Amino acid sequence: MADIFERLIKNYGPIGEHRNRSHGYYTFPKLEGEIGNRMQFRGKEVIVWSLNNYLGLANHPEIRKADTEATAGFGLAYPMGARMMSGNSIYHEQLEKELAEFEHKEDAILLNYGYQGIMSAIDTLCGRHDVIVYDAESHACIIDGLRLHPGHRYVYRHNDVEDCEKQLQRAVALVEKQKQGGILVITEGVFGMAGDQGKLKEIVALKDKYQFRLLVDDAHGFGTLGKTGAGAGEEQGCQDGIDLYFSTFAKSMASIGAFMAGPVEIIDFIRYNIRSQIFAKSLPMPFVIGNLKRLAMLRSMPELKERLWKNALKLQNGLKEKGFDIGKTDSVVTPVYMKGGVPEATAMVTDLRENYGIFCSIVVYPVIPKGHIIYRLIPTAAHTNEDIEATLNAFSETKQKLDAGAYKVEDIVQMAEAR
Amino acid sequence: MADIFERLIKNYGPIGEHRNRSHGYYTFPKLEGEIGNRMQFRGKEVIVWSLNNYLGLANHPEIRKADTEATAGFGLAYPMGARMMSGNSIYHEQLEKELAEFEHKEDAILLNYGYQGIMSAIDTLCGRHDVIVYDAESHACIIDGLRLHPGHRYVYRHNDVEDCEKQLQRAVALVEKQKQGGILVITEGVFGMAGDQGKLKEIVALKDKYQFRLLVDDAHGFGTLGKTGAGAGEEQGCQDGIDLYFSTFAKSMASIGAFMAGPVEIIDFIRYNIRSQIFAKSLPMPFVIGNLKRLAMLRSMPELKERLWKNALKLQNGLKEKGFDIGKTDSVVTPVYMKGGVPEATAMVTDLRENYGIFCSIVVYPVIPKGHIIYRLIPTAAHTNEDIEATLNAFSETKQKLDAGAYKVEDIVQMAEAR
Repeated sequence: MADIFERLIKNYGPIGEHRNRSHGYYTFPKLEGEIGNRMQFRGKEVIVWSLNNYLGLANHPEIRKADTEATAGFGLAYPMGARMMSGNSIYHEQLEKELAEFEHKEDAILLNYGYQGIMSAIDTLCGRHDVIVYDAESHACIIDGLRLHPGHRYVYRHNDVEDCEKQLQRAVALVEKQKQGGILVITEGVFGMAGDQGKLKEIVALKDKYQFRLLVDDAHGFGTLGKTGAGAGEEQGCQDGIDLYFSTFAKSMASIGAFMAGPVEIIDFIRYNIRSQIFAKSLPMPFVIGNLKRLAMLRSMPELKERLWKNALKLQNGLKEKGFDIGKTDSVVTPVYMKGGVPEATAMVTDLRENYGIFCSIVVYPVIPKGHIIYRLIPTAAHTNEDIEATLNAFSETKQKLDAGAYKVEDIVQMAEAR
Repeated sequence: MADIFERLIKNYGPIGEHRNRSHGYYTFPKLEGEIGNRMQFRGKEVIVWSLNNYLGLANHPEIRKADTEATAGFGLAYPMGARMMSGNSIYHEQLEKELAEFEHKEDAILLNYGYQGIMSAIDTLCGRHDVIVYDAESHACIIDGLRLHPGHRYVYRHNDVEDCEKQLQRAVALVEKQKQGGILVITEGVFGMAGDQGKLKEIVALKDKYQFRLLVDDAHGFGTLGKTGAGAGEEQGCQDGIDLYFSTFAKSMASIGAFMAGPVEIIDFIRYNIRSQIFAKSLPMPFVIGNLKRLAMLRSMPELKERLWKNALKLQNGLKEKGFDIGKTDSVVTPVYMKGGVPEATAMVTDLRENYGIFCSIVVYPVIPKGHIIYRLIPTAAHTNEDIEATLNAFSETKQKLDAGAYKVEDIVQMAEAR
């Protein structure tokens, strides 16, 4: 008979197995100083491309003032208890009202955290006879929601509308055979890894042929896409076809919490049945007031989104001009695809951090196939032309070294030991 | 073929179906003013028995000061990103270190929210061949964790150690048959509804006969039980037998977030594999610093716990003397069991709120069997003798009305209309 603990420590998993060398540097690094384009990493200034502070709101003086005043006024404890029991306030309701208006939906529900919020919402919406059709590259929080679903789920190839239709046909056949149950399609507004928008318009168009409801997780689209920043639905002109619109506050809003917007009856249903909210504490008041302020600035300062896009396009065009492959992004998320193993990737990241002062995140095997590396750059409104030029230059030079085979396994060992 | 939305609005669920009458009063009420023994409800002062602010820390001047200073210093946005990617800090690590020490464990991991934290930890620890044995009255967040578990799970009758042993025997038989997998037992330090402590000592004793690991959710025991406030394990003298100790910060700590403490290798395993933390934002810095301050006060001010228990015992003894049934609580959680239907229960709660200025929560069918009512009182260090006496008096008088059949359905309708 096996001991659970003994088994666990035999295999720390794909990231954990490298923890002795990676911890504190590649994993669990500490970015210090004020959130912005430049921060401190191990005592040295770096240009930071890893934070989803898209609009640069995190440290805007007005936001900092609002955050501090809200905390001074209410403390971090208020309100206590679940929203339904003792954790409600006029501010929670006000934020819901404003988010619903902003997303052109009838109503919205605040969620205390995005991950458990959407996971639990999926669980709330679907019974055992319902079928969920979803994009293969959906975020972990959606996948965990699907794992709670006792009924069938059909996955379609990432952003492949033809395959989506095929899975819809399978779903229709099943619910017809069952003589009960409905269909929920789940996808994202922007896929956070590759930066490609979900094909929302095309999926909404499938409603002419098939009966289903559409839930969109627009974590990276909220605030960055669409004329008013309302997200990928607005950008693609199909917001009305999105039945339930979800976004976290952890990206453009530089905060925590999340919301889901949709028809008033359905939001009310969720409000009275969603386990992660009924059985857990309400979003703390300083975040509610802080998010009201962020939403107000997001609406009244279109220049933030303009600056974000100016920076994103300068970065993306610069990378393309220098011959880099940035894939099929049509959002500000900027992946840079290269070839190489984990040792080369980590050596290059170390070189970027130590010698060029560039801090970005890498994605390697097993998240993506062996031999591939993705450097993921997140431009924000807070970046400067100088930041972008220094980064383009650093990428050019380090790629030359990578292509020339200059990054070797021994380098990393040496670099790791030097730390 | 059915539409998901159409089905949902046909049945709003056990609580939702009453929402037109309950919303804003019995459900989603707004408690206003500073968190404490007395707050405002619909413009009137009420004595509040619904908040798990056990030690009265929520509004302690030193806590309010620490919360405000931390927010002024860092803003609510910092740090951004998941802990593993860009959301780490020396303060996060410091709080983990102090929590581990406080719980006499080797290491601890901070969790951004309790609900998704423990749910995801259960998912992380157990593979498909592992068997989970758990108490029937485990909290919703544990149940959601079990729902993610692809392997077997055996439930034992609430706090029934004999049945627990029987389920352990079944679990042992299964893993022996499988020739792989281990056993995880999950229970709570204090069950939040009835207030009875989990039989941790007896369960730990079963380790002599069976090989398993024990995970304890001590949400209500942390800070309220044990000589130093380390919780139910310390109280029962079996802290060493608890392999993984979990608590939220939403109760005694009057905050958000949570932690799990245990052996360093296992915490490390969790750190590198727990989905709700790897794929979601880190606990915001003001909460980390605020929780460091709360933990320091919890440790240095034993008088808070003493005052809590003095109040709890005064309330519990007073209720017993007046002939109330408070069940088998051996924690500060104080349930009052009465007989009656939902109409009588709601009428009595309204009477308590409107005419006696007492705000407490009720639990009715379908959470508990039809014909039963539980009034749940949460004493805190912030309550006064006057609060307790007024409450005992109010309960005596309203129970007389209840027993005399004075609370009628028409009363509620009338009261609801009068609002």
